Amino acid sequence: MNKADLIFATGEASADMLYASGFQAPDPFIYFSCLEERAVIVSALEQDRAEKESKPNIAIFERNDFLKNEKAGNLDVICSLAESRNISKFRVPCDFPLALADALRKKGLAVHAVETAFYPQRQYKSKNEITHINTAMRVAEEAMQRGIDIIKEASVNNDNILEWDGKILTSEVLQAEINIAMIRRGGFSDSTIAACGSQAAEPHNTGSGPIFADKTIIIDIFPRIKKTGYWGDITRTLVKGKAPDIVKKAYKAVFEAREHAKTLIKPGAIPSKIHKAAKELMEAQGFKTGRKNGHNFGFFHGLGHSLGLEIHENPSLNPRNNEPLKGGEVITVEPGLYYPEWGGVRLEDLIVVRKDGCECLTKIENILEI
Amino acid sequence: MNKADLIFATGEASADMLYASGFQAPDPFIYFSCLEERAVIVSALEQDRAEKESKPNIAIFERNDFLKNEKAGNLDVICSLAESRNISKFRVPCDFPLALADALRKKGLAVHAVETAFYPQRQYKSKNEITHINTAMRVAEEAMQRGIDIIKEASVNNDNILEWDGKILTSEVLQAEINIAMIRRGGFSDSTIAACGSQAAEPHNTGSGPIFADKTIIIDIFPRIKKTGYWGDITRTLVKGKAPDIVKKAYKAVFEAREHAKTLIKPGAIPSKIHKAAKELMEAQGFKTGRKNGHNFGFFHGLGHSLGLEIHENPSLNPRNNEPLKGGEVITVEPGLYYPEWGGVRLEDLIVVRKDGCECLTKIENILEI
Repeated sequence: MNKADLIFATGEASADMLYASGFQAPDPFIYFSCLEERAVIVSALEQDRAEKESKPNIAIFERNDFLKNEKAGNLDVICSLAESRNISKFRVPCDFPLALADALRKKGLAVHAVETAFYPQRQYKSKNEITHINTAMRVAEEAMQRGIDIIKEASVNNDNILEWDGKILTSEVLQAEINIAMIRRGGFSDSTIAACGSQAAEPHNTGSGPIFADKTIIIDIFPRIKKTGYWGDITRTLVKGKAPDIVKKAYKAVFEAREHAKTLIKPGAIPSKIHKAAKELMEAQGFKTGRKNGHNFGFFHGLGHSLGLEIHENPSLNPRNNEPLKGGEVITVEPGLYYPEWGGVRLEDLIVVRKDGCECLTKIENILEI
Repeated sequence: MNKADLIFATGEASADMLYASGFQAPDPFIYFSCLEERAVIVSALEQDRAEKESKPNIAIFERNDFLKNEKAGNLDVICSLAESRNISKFRVPCDFPLALADALRKKGLAVHAVETAFYPQRQYKSKNEITHINTAMRVAEEAMQRGIDIIKEASVNNDNILEWDGKILTSEVLQAEINIAMIRRGGFSDSTIAACGSQAAEPHNTGSGPIFADKTIIIDIFPRIKKTGYWGDITRTLVKGKAPDIVKKAYKAVFEAREHAKTLIKPGAIPSKIHKAAKELMEAQGFKTGRKNGHNFGFFHGLGHSLGLEIHENPSLNPRNNEPLKGGEVITVEPGLYYPEWGGVRLEDLIVVRKDGCECLTKIENILEI
């Protein structure tokens, strides 16, 4: 009896599927590898495209070719596969769909979900992968430049609100213009953050309504490149007009925390310690973290996350990760400070962990007041 | 001991999560309902946003509030939840992640994956949901009009290739301009199809390279509205210049199949029979379906699919679905004909199944030659 790797997912939602097959399809399909064979099983609708777009060493099967029964479901197809290859045990990713696993088990097949990474090598990027991520970063930076240019071009009206192109400049307009800049370069994102004032004090608030002068504006841009599936990620914080002193002080603390963290990143370094060092540096400058009236303030997210075929990958730079870095990881470094009274500051660079330290893939300048 | 519904997913990837909680977050979070209680458990990062954006009857818990342990994982949080509510059995959606389910079972909790719909009522859209889908359709139609206008404006060069805005008009440019039209209206899509000639003979080929005159161009647009999560979907087929006779004939067959299918759609109608009727109508006009040299030709996909918070939902109009329609479904009707020799034709309208027949939500005209 044989063992096989099995994935059932879309190439869009599952990075493991995209990593294994190279194929992006909107509906879930089957990937398996068994002994020397690596293959996908797709619907008639996807066959021609799968043949063109899948990785070169992947065989393409059509569902109906595989099991001559128009009414066969995925369970039947996988059982037929198991029979033909004499498979008794499947190794599957942790997010494998439960109902399908239970049904396979009922048929007498063992299904073992890998609790950690299905492809641990995804944590260490190849030269080719870093090229793809760099492409995404150039798209992200062009889009950031578009955002910065719009805020530069904007005027300030009597209510201290920005106006651009003859209208009130809102978060929504800024997000749309940034997204358009990405689309023109082959990237896309549906969650661009352009949040001003108290909205910027909530790290995942994408922002809505008018942009004000003299308040912090956090712009966080993370495009995925359609063709390759790889992500980029960048954050800058700006103030149109004059930044209050507390904002200037926070900006300096966040900037220094980021730069200090970058000096600590190298093979062997412990992520939780790097996170702690960044947090302590900001605390020493007067920026405490805590909770008041049911709201968090200070620095209450992880210092960074890896990215690749997913926007959030392991390893992370957070207080829980004590696994030493090895080299080859591509990680964001993004300290932030958030206080409902005046808003938020976050500065995010993307780095590659190299033998002798870290290489920064982010090239765009850091500016506060424009 | 109590039973509870449990979802662990992002509100972006899981329509069940979005339907239950109303909350869209980029990272997976926990939803449960038990007795009279409905709640989400989110990270500190998402708490404020969850409080503002979740459905009004949903309680918001913060993970660390729930389990005072910074290192607690999702398994620990769910076990703590089970203990506090005296829960012994969880009902979960079919795509619940296997590793988490197996870990919960190891802790002595029963986890039952619902094999069909977790919320069957999602198949029958409320007035409010139909309003959201209609909004998405208006965005889709504006984007379609943008595509049509560009092809109208384009000139044809000596190689029979379209030129627009001083450059060769490619599928990629057409897709980008269509996507930009959607973004400006609050919709997004990363897989817009604008495929010409033999590429249009592969239903899911999004298209690449130059657009040619006198060949079929399939434009298939499906935006998701960011604010609500609801989708729209529309397909038209165009020819710049003169359509060959075979294309005109196929266009007529597809158009008539769609209109005929629409007359059959009403409560009590059997989806497989509607699919069959459309297929037979096209066959009677000379368009056979089959397979040659490893490629499919003719009409080899389902006649339609429901949509809502997902782009592909049940029920479908396909040869396998023998469950009568009930009324309240929102379904695409999209017959197509595909032949590598000359390309493809697909015409897609979106309809609501009403008591006395079907109401068409698609308003844009059908035109072939422009």
